[in-house]
Parts: sequence; structure tokens; C-alpha cells
Amino acid sequence: MPTCAIFAIGNELLTGSIIDTNSAFLGSLLTAQGFTISEIRLVPDQLETLVETIEQALGKYDFIICTGGLGPTFDDVTAAAVGRATKREISFYEQVYEHIVTRLQSKNVPIRDSHRRQAYLPDQAILFPNPMGTAYGFGVESESTLLIAVPGVPYEMKSMMEAHVAPFLTTRFSLQRRFMEELRFTALPESEVDDIIEQVTIPDSVECIINVSDGEIVVRLKSDDQNILQQFSQKLRTGLEQFFVGYNDETLAALLVNLLKRTKETIAVAESCTGGLLGQEITAVPGSSEVFLGGIIVYSNWAKTKLLQVPESIIDTVGPVSAECASALVKNLKSLFNSSAAISITGLAGPSGGTAEQPVGTVFIGLSYRDLCVVKHHSFSGDRQSIRQRSKKMALWQMITLIRESSAKESVKSEC
Amino acid sequence: MPTCAIFAIGNELLTGSIIDTNSAFLGSLLTAQGFTISEIRLVPDQLETLVETIEQALGKYDFIICTGGLGPTFDDVTAAAVGRATKREISFYEQVYEHIVTRLQSKNVPIRDSHRRQAYLPDQAILFPNPMGTAYGFGVESESTLLIAVPGVPYEMKSMMEAHVAPFLTTRFSLQRRFMEELRFTALPESEVDDIIEQVTIPDSVECIINVSDGEIVVRLKSDDQNILQQFSQKLRTGLEQFFVGYNDETLAALLVNLLKRTKETIAVAESCTGGLLGQEITAVPGSSEVFLGGIIVYSNWAKTKLLQVPESIIDTVGPVSAECASALVKNLKSLFNSSAAISITGLAGPSGGTAEQPVGTVFIGLSYRDLCVVKHHSFSGDRQSIRQRSKKMALWQMITLIRESSAKESVKSEC
Repeated sequence: MPTCAIFAIGNELLTGSIIDTNSAFLGSLLTAQGFTISEIRLVPDQLETLVETIEQALGKYDFIICTGGLGPTFDDVTAAAVGRATKREISFYEQVYEHIVTRLQSKNVPIRDSHRRQAYLPDQAILFPNPMGTAYGFGVESESTLLIAVPGVPYEMKSMMEAHVAPFLTTRFSLQRRFMEELRFTALPESEVDDIIEQVTIPDSVECIINVSDGEIVVRLKSDDQNILQQFSQKLRTGLEQFFVGYNDETLAALLVNLLKRTKETIAVAESCTGGLLGQEITAVPGSSEVFLGGIIVYSNWAKTKLLQVPESIIDTVGPVSAECASALVKNLKSLFNSSAAISITGLAGPSGGTAEQPVGTVFIGLSYRDLCVVKHHSFSGDRQSIRQRSKKMALWQMITLIRESSAKESVKSEC
Repeated sequence: MPTCAIFAIGNELLTGSIIDTNSAFLGSLLTAQGFTISEIRLVPDQLETLVETIEQALGKYDFIICTGGLGPTFDDVTAAAVGRATKREISFYEQVYEHIVTRLQSKNVPIRDSHRRQAYLPDQAILFPNPMGTAYGFGVESESTLLIAVPGVPYEMKSMMEAHVAPFLTTRFSLQRRFMEELRFTALPESEVDDIIEQVTIPDSVECIINVSDGEIVVRLKSDDQNILQQFSQKLRTGLEQFFVGYNDETLAALLVNLLKRTKETIAVAESCTGGLLGQEITAVPGSSEVFLGGIIVYSNWAKTKLLQVPESIIDTVGPVSAECASALVKNLKSLFNSSAAISITGLAGPSGGTAEQPVGTVFIGLSYRDLCVVKHHSFSGDRQSIRQRSKKMALWQMITLIRESSAKESVKSEC
């Protein structure tokens, strides 16, 4: 299998001003294409360091991909560094400049001298058009290594990779697609997945990666043998069926949207401590408008009592973070929207506001589907951000479970 | 200045199953503490590779920090790798196991054999308690390099770094805090920042990093000389005053929340294409409950017409993505919540639904503050996620601008 190094370029990546999301995208895409990712490195915008990093990797790996440093500003040095490392001159590409001008004009951005910079690339480069921005990508071969540079702006990089670079690589390296499968689980401790995996024993030809994040567990399997992969995947799923969410891109939100699409049903949300996080997760799924009617962000007690008619007596006695409040919210939400399903979330995300009886992390989730209604009490760990993320994921999962149980005609009892 | 390497450990980071956010946090924290970050590398969960990576860095850098691979599962190899690279035995630490048992019991998680694994660490290690999880951190010295391993779960790593590791490093390396300042700008093209920076000329002792992401531009300045840093920062701000958002952690949402807190005013949101993203961004700011009353996610036309009384004639003629709809939404939202400020967002985030007259990326933002009301029309670039992010940021920025203009008593005219 051809080897690959990924270099994400930018001082801001080393000093942590921004999070590098490009390496993950490239790692995932190139792994699926059949490359072994040997190295990922974050490299500063320093010409010398970048030249040296590229020189060390030339001849060592079959393929190097650089992302970033192709912009119009003075600290963008990728083209110059590639030129130096591969001993090529830098020249002005008329075709690239025309693209830049056309693109800027369509956005009503005045053309400046600095825009010419992006048209200077190493000689005899393979050019990759940018469907969503001004910076062209380019490729050069040196010491039997192919080096390709793509922009650092994530959506420009992604569209260029998918439209131009990935197809080019498949041909250039005669790549065999590798078989991969991700299994997504939720609502169980990490150590249980491990116990199950140890019981089923992983076949030698299967690579297995477990990743846990805010209550979601993703097991990624990789193999050149499709049959062995599928058998193992099936065993794993069977062992953990009650926690199984879906495969690959079947996120909790996408799964919920698809479940409701199948029965042409609808959903609405009422969010207190998550403040819109659940709504934005559902609406991040393209096509969610078929099932998602909308929601109420009931962040204040005023919103809870006036917009969703939570009785003031509940706020005054047990308070807004209570099973009673979650129940009133979800019931009144469902009848307001006249939806098939409804979710309410009310809780304490912190950092302040916790007490001994009701610590930060206390969250009540109200769920209603058809004529069923339940309220779940949770104690989540983590900081404000993590508690909100866990609340969102758990709410999605419990809604999915309620819908599945209901359609499996198991005995589900309404509790509120 | 002492040098530092950051190794983020996990196969899932190389194959892109998850995005490495820890390196950015560590890079930012350690830079501020006075380290030069010489290298960031993502390393697989392979004992041999990790041993080799650590061996190469021992003696080369003053400090190495490893994050990840301390969990209870079979692919967690950090303790073993550190032991091997520094030629230390691995031993069972009773104190660590007691912490694990206490923590699990408090969460009602049954104790399993696999939980003992996290108590095996290299001999004679400095221990760092984990305020939010089971995995202890540890430090060892070898070849005049200090190596510290911390967990990979982001909130566990962060709380351990802040509570225990950072103070330890300050003493151990007699660190001098470096002066840093971030200036946040929005709503201007990247190339303009560059032109301004070139005009003002960066002093030699100031390091300057520019980072652009979905419509927000962050300029990070770093220097050992506080006066020179502040003078340059002031020049930069003056040159771009109309686009200046704030310093350091003053994100758009935090800035808006603080502006409203000062005058004890309130805000509500009505979101269509962003589906809750704006609400969740505002409520991510701790203490936002003082000003944020809540919102309506008007994702469907039903929600627009029934919950916020957008006239059906608007939906039928100009459609839900229109200035008229944004205007009706924001006006009716403000009177429903009786808030001082209100924001509405309606647009086409794609991927489908675009036409020649109204392409994907068309977004209308309605803004109301006191007796003012304006609607802004935008054409955003990017994919669904990016268009939603840009809409959110622009809405926050335009609200901030409206409030500032209004209190500066400039002539602001209501337009809707």
C-alpha cells in the first residue's frame, strides 16, 4: 500500500489559535482510498522549516499532501517552499490569475496587487482548480514522491480533493479501495466495548480503532478482506445490539431524521440548557426539513411559562430543572406543533448554579412519540460544553430508542 | 525559551475518525506559558512507533507532552511506551487504583478487571490527579527532557493541565509569561488585513499570525516586550476599527452578551436555516441567561406563519427566504418576547434548493434593537455548514454594530 504524509501548514496550528480539522478529513479520505498514513505533522509558516520538512519526506513516502499556506498574504509560503525543496523556479500562471480575477469580480471584491501572489506556482506543475475559492492547488513529482498542495480553507480543500485530487490519485497510484466500516454505539461505558471486543477476538486481517467522545463510541474497522470484515462487524453489532446506533455516517441526528422520514412523521424540540444545540444538530442533516418543524428555545423561565405553558407552580416548587418541567415542556410542545414526536431538555450545564442535591450535570430529557411520553433523569460528567453535547446526544438516542420500541410493539408505557 | 514537542496519540487521529482538538489547546496554553512549540505530531497507538517517536525527542527538546492513550482499553499504550523509551519498569500504583475505584463507584459503574490497567505507570513518576476522570497523568525525566503524559479526553486533559500540570511547569522551568494578544475582526476580506499590516510594518520583536475562518479573522500577536506589543496592537486596531470585534476570548457571542449586560437589556432569536446555531452560540457563553430570553426555531413555513405570524402572503409571493420574511420574523419575535433586541435569520444553506435568482448562500438577517429595525441581504460562499456558520457570525456582528451605533447616537435609520 502506498504511504502518505500529511503536512498541515500554519503557525496558528502550532500556537493553537485554530484547530486543525483538515488533517482529519485528509486522513479519513486517503485511508479510504488505500493509503497508509505514515505521518501527520503540523508545520509553521516558516519557509526554512517547511522546506526542510518537505525535503526529509521526499523519497521517503510515495505521496505528500500539504494543506494551507496558499493564500494571498505574506505568511503564505507553500508554493515557494515546494519550489525550493523540489528545485523548481516559481512562475506566474496566466490561467490561475484569470480564475482569481473572475472569482473576485463575481463577489464584487476589488482586485489588489496582493491577489497576483496566488498565481505564482512552481514550474511544470499539475494544476487543480478550486471550485470554491481563488487558490489553485498544484502537484509536482520529485525523488519518486508525488507532492500535492491544496488550500487550507476547509471547504475549498474538501471540494478540491473530492472533485480533482482524489480521482487523480486513484489513477496515478492504481489504488485499490480498502474496506472500512464504522460502527457507532452510544450510552455505554468505554470499558464494556473493550470487553466485548476481547470476547469476540479481532481477526488478524482486521484493524480496529475505538474512539469515545462525549457519550458516543465509534469503532472503526479496516481490512482488505471484505468477508472477514463483515463477519466481525456483525459479531460486534450483535454483542452490543442495544447500544448500536448505525454505520459510517449514520449519526444520531441522521438516523432520527431517516426513521421519521420513513413513516412521514414530524418532530419539534424545546431546549433550555442546550439553547439550540439539538435543533442545529438535527438541521445540520440535509433534507431535515421534511421532518423537523422547528422548536422553542426556552432558556428563561419566562419562555418556559409563557411560550410552553409550564405551570408557574412547577417553577416555584421543584424548579425549572425537574422531571415535572421536562414533562410539561414536551407535552405542550407536542400539542403546539402538532408533531408526531417531541423532545425537551432542561438541565444545569454549569459552571455555576449547582447545589449538593442538584449538581452541575443534572439534566432531564422529556420524550414524546405518538401517545407515549417519558422523562429521563441524567447526571452527566464534564464541563459546560461537554454536558450540553452529552445532553443533545442522549436526547437523540432516547428518541430513536422510543421510536424503535414503539414500532417493535414492545410494551412501552407512558410515564408522564 | 524552553522548547516543547506535543504528541497527540491515537490511531483515530491519523485515519481521521476524530479531529484532534487537544494539540490546539496545548499549543495555546504552552505558548502562553513561555514555551516555543517546535513540533506537533499525531502518533498512532502502536507501541513501537510511539517508543521511537519519544526516543527521538528525548534530549532534543526541553519538554514533551503526550496526550491520549491512557484509557483502560487494549489499544492504550502510552504508559508502556514511556516506560520503554525511558528504561523504567511499569508498576501498580495503589493510590491511582483507589482513585479509579472511588470515581467509578460514585458514577455507579461496576468495577472490572480492565480498570486496573490505568493504575500501571512507569516507576518513580510524578503523579498528576485527574479532577474529572479515572486516568492519572504522570511525568518522568530522562536525558534532561521532562516528559508528561495526560489523558486524551479533552475535558479531563484540560482540567488536569490547568489545575496541576501548568503550575508545575511554571516552577520547573522558571517560566516567564510571554505577552500575547489576539485581535478579532470580522466582515472584511483577508487581503485587506494584510494590506493594513504591511502599511503599519510589524516590529521585529513581534510575531504576527493571521487566521481566517468562516468570516472571522483573528490576528495573534506575541512578544517579550509588552510596550511594543501594545503599541502595534493599537495601530492595528485603529487601522481596522470598523471591523474590530474584540481581544482574546471576546468572541462575537461573548461581546454581544457583555454589551447587553452593561445596559441590563435582553435578546431573543428566530432561526430558520441556522436551526438553533445562533441560540446555542449565545448560550455557550456562561452567564448568558442574564440577557438571553430564548428563541423560536422557525424551520418550517408552518412555524414562521403560526408561531411568529409571518403573513402567508409573504410566503406565497416572495417566499420564506426574503427581506420581507426576515423583517416580519424579527418584528414579531421582539414583541412576543418583549426583548430589547431581536435577531432573525432566514436563508438557503443548501446543498439543494438554489435557483439562478436565489442561489445557495442567500441569507437575510433581520435585526431589531430598541426602536430600530434593519434587514441585511447576504450571499455567502461555502458548503451548508460554512453558510450556517457565516450566517450566525454575521448576525452576531451586525447586532453588535447596531447596538454600538445606536449608543454612539449616530444617525441610524430604521428600515423595516
